[in-house]
Amino acid sequence: MLKPDFEISGNIVDLFERRTFPGIVTVKNGTITAIEKTIVAEAQLILPGLIDAHIHIESSMLVPTEFARLAVTHGTVAAVCDPHEIANVLGLTGVEYMLENAGQSPFKFYFGAPSCVPATPFETAGAAIELADIERLFNGGLKFLSEMMNVPGVLLDLPEVRAKLDLAQKYGRPMDGHSPGLQGADAEKYIAAGISTDHECVTLAEAREKIANGMKIQIREGSAARNFAELYPLIDEFPGMCMLCSDDKHPDDLEAGHINELIKRGLAAGLDKYNLLRAACITPVEHYGLDVGLLRVGDPADFVVVDDLQKFNVIQTYIDGNLVAENGRSALQSVPVPVVNNFNCQSKKVFDFVVPVAGERIQTIDVIPDQLITNGALVQSRVIDGNVVADPDRDILKLTVVNRYANAQPAIGFVRNFGLKSGAIASSVAHDSHNIVAIGASDAELCRVVNLVIEQRGGIAAVNGQEELILALPVAGIMSDRDGHSVAALYSELDQFAKGLGSTLPAPFMSLSFLALLVIPELKLSDQGLFDGVRFKFTSVFG
Amino acid sequence: MLKPDFEISGNIVDLFERRTFPGIVTVKNGTITAIEKTIVAEAQLILPGLIDAHIHIESSMLVPTEFARLAVTHGTVAAVCDPHEIANVLGLTGVEYMLENAGQSPFKFYFGAPSCVPATPFETAGAAIELADIERLFNGGLKFLSEMMNVPGVLLDLPEVRAKLDLAQKYGRPMDGHSPGLQGADAEKYIAAGISTDHECVTLAEAREKIANGMKIQIREGSAARNFAELYPLIDEFPGMCMLCSDDKHPDDLEAGHINELIKRGLAAGLDKYNLLRAACITPVEHYGLDVGLLRVGDPADFVVVDDLQKFNVIQTYIDGNLVAENGRSALQSVPVPVVNNFNCQSKKVFDFVVPVAGERIQTIDVIPDQLITNGALVQSRVIDGNVVADPDRDILKLTVVNRYANAQPAIGFVRNFGLKSGAIASSVAHDSHNIVAIGASDAELCRVVNLVIEQRGGIAAVNGQEELILALPVAGIMSDRDGHSVAALYSELDQFAKGLGSTLPAPFMSLSFLALLVIPELKLSDQGLFDGVRFKFTSVFG
Repeated sequence: MLKPDFEISGNIVDLFERRTFPGIVTVKNGTITAIEKTIVAEAQLILPGLIDAHIHIESSMLVPTEFARLAVTHGTVAAVCDPHEIANVLGLTGVEYMLENAGQSPFKFYFGAPSCVPATPFETAGAAIELADIERLFNGGLKFLSEMMNVPGVLLDLPEVRAKLDLAQKYGRPMDGHSPGLQGADAEKYIAAGISTDHECVTLAEAREKIANGMKIQIREGSAARNFAELYPLIDEFPGMCMLCSDDKHPDDLEAGHINELIKRGLAAGLDKYNLLRAACITPVEHYGLDVGLLRVGDPADFVVVDDLQKFNVIQTYIDGNLVAENGRSALQSVPVPVVNNFNCQSKKVFDFVVPVAGERIQTIDVIPDQLITNGALVQSRVIDGNVVADPDRDILKLTVVNRYANAQPAIGFVRNFGLKSGAIASSVAHDSHNIVAIGASDAELCRVVNLVIEQRGGIAAVNGQEELILALPVAGIMSDRDGHSVAALYSELDQFAKGLGSTLPAPFMSLSFLALLVIPELKLSDQGLFDGVRFKFTSVFG
Repeated sequence: MLKPDFEISGNIVDLFERRTFPGIVTVKNGTITAIEKTIVAEAQLILPGLIDAHIHIESSMLVPTEFARLAVTHGTVAAVCDPHEIANVLGLTGVEYMLENAGQSPFKFYFGAPSCVPATPFETAGAAIELADIERLFNGGLKFLSEMMNVPGVLLDLPEVRAKLDLAQKYGRPMDGHSPGLQGADAEKYIAAGISTDHECVTLAEAREKIANGMKIQIREGSAARNFAELYPLIDEFPGMCMLCSDDKHPDDLEAGHINELIKRGLAAGLDKYNLLRAACITPVEHYGLDVGLLRVGDPADFVVVDDLQKFNVIQTYIDGNLVAENGRSALQSVPVPVVNNFNCQSKKVFDFVVPVAGERIQTIDVIPDQLITNGALVQSRVIDGNVVADPDRDILKLTVVNRYANAQPAIGFVRNFGLKSGAIASSVAHDSHNIVAIGASDAELCRVVNLVIEQRGGIAAVNGQEELILALPVAGIMSDRDGHSVAALYSELDQFAKGLGSTLPAPFMSLSFLALLVIPELKLSDQGLFDGVRFKFTSVFG
């Protein structure tokens, strides 16, 4: 890409000196060569580009090049990415796919080496990332070990977990954490193992304890988990120990806003602007050793222009001196998206989803809006003809996880707080193994929506009577090969569809996709059965 | 070294699980292969070896092999070392000397690449460490960038300083800090540059602010600077953000105790034992990525055996499964110590130290016991025959720094709170350039003691009338080529000599050696003149 030489004027935000002054930034060949303090006419603000410190790009259902096209419109110039999702489907091949595609974008993607693929031995994944793969990725320049979700493995000091941590230490790579709710002696042990970030904090007390133990906190505001409102005080309290991140971000949400939204909200909440921007710009660069510019002479010209700090409307985004977005429009072009996949199951029959009664009460997975954690409850089952069925009147729906890597019997569970009155929804985005997860008010619709996804070899879908809608996700069964805006529009339609079926959740498909994420307690469903995430073992649907 | 296979029984301290249990540790070929919980007869404690997280080995006046011989008797198994002193004398050659010598010891030395050699442009050093040298050291496996003492350079974002930080970041090497008293916006800027440790904190408030900004605090208890009594509460407050270190440790002090003394004191003060040992063992390993064992299966067998936690008498020390010390006796042998040096000045004459009066009052450097910082004061001078002379009755002594790398006119200053009533003392250990620093009650004795050091091409010396004593330091003019115990004994004698002259300072030679350390305010003497460490420029002796 051509790197034009230019000057840009405005009020320059110097995060290191904690001051803002009028002046001119000179850019030559992608680098800032001068910053001159002088009187200028422009009232606009120039500040370093924003960084998402932890995201699974796959959650946007977009390939990296398309993710970048949308993100730059919000002033994001870089993202620290865990290619954990595609790795669960395709292993090293999947990670290489992401690197290859990301390399076609000027956006600064920094991928880590996935630490937990498969996530647990309790589910069927498409691939595994072995120790040798991680070493290969480190040698290839990957900058960190991605989130260590195997908390019990760390606490039990399992040799295979230990070997990965030791390898990261040997290579001098930071190790990302994932330790929801971990406190006390367990938190100390987990952190003492060398794990230095966490993006799963839900309470201030938990976050403060983790900080005291040496962890940096990535304050998360994603599509399914939103912790900013609770955690933002940390930014003024521990200005060098915080970052901002999405973790997971739906395509429609990404189209609407990104880290810029958190800046707006933080400022409105009265946070010190320099502390806030430090969390969004400096701390990720320092923690992970990123070559993202921070608006100093000699830095890569990665910066954004906004109208003013309160409104924080992003006017322009520059990466390496290239204008990549202006007034909400991306200057980045779509590139051809090759399809890779790992999808090997055949259509199901309705009777595959039938649950013969085997006890009076069933254990339900109770969804908590805006949280990845779930509760469990023991409730009376509804039985028809000797089979347990969904009971939409009591908001008890049937949940299934269908192995997509081989033909196998679907696992069945029950879920509450999802709200569907009729129809069914399904997704082959199902953390972490990305089998097919579906939820339905009837067995017939449940079967139909699952088969819709199977026919497309991946996608998210909804059915209701004769009506049906699908967003095909042919790239590994978790990403679209289409442009970001189309995907966002279709995803919005699907979201509306699900809400039209009665779901009161803010993001029903995201909540759906986490119902198979075994590592987050309390109760989840694997393709192999109902899983107790507290005791870390399978349990029975019948209580 | 042969690595015997053996078992050892006792109460095993598991820092990760925060528990202590009776059992047997099995060691094979230097590695812990099993830890079995079982009833055992031995009441002794087995715990991970202690680590000094920041030390200049040269301050012990011993080469690494001799330092190790003494340190292991106290349960120390590893040290994170900045070879800053020898680098100022001999550059890269000096660093390589340390690596070569350290490599002959089983003790785990981890050297950093010196960041600030010469320390300032305001003094004459023997060598410089350039950016390319640092890169060469990183490529050679050095694990971190040593303390960035050029605080103004970081705050002013000077290109040569920035380049070193960028290089460390590119190589994924932690950057050590050195920022005495730095608080507020300056501290934020310094830390935001990526510098992640500090060992110069004097107050809790300063340390807490640095921690909030993301720095780990290395609580220092050395021969000249002692901050443990003030800072130890941090260990329970931020258990993952603290380490323990000496920074500088005299040979006699090293013979008496090391990190083990801090463990004793911390326990007596009521600190949580696991938090305290975490600071001494785990945190340095995690922060710097050291391959020091932490008493887990699979770890190198680096551990110590102590009688009990309160008394903390070290019975045995093991490194890689080798017994390196037992009951206060080192099992390590002395090795031949080759001499390298850079010492090129000739003897001085008494009139070289004469100061013709040029004003009524003189600026004195006022030493503060146990601190590296000094105060400055403006006092009436004592004049004889038109020359300003020392005035021991008012505790005003003459101070000189003599360039040892070339023949040059000595720089002269005046110092208070040193206490000598007669005689003179000198040292070619004079931070950071290691010219000759000397202090005297008369010009004649001042000249004699300086010449004594010059004749030996390095040493610390004291004279009084016809009496004289010198510890020769022929290795770079800062280290002895003799065995640690002899050096400790002779150093003690010199210490007593200086105290016999009237010095009330706890460590007069160490305080002397820091009077030329320009980077620590307020007033210091360089070989080029009196230096204002606050304004960072030369100033006049006459106020």
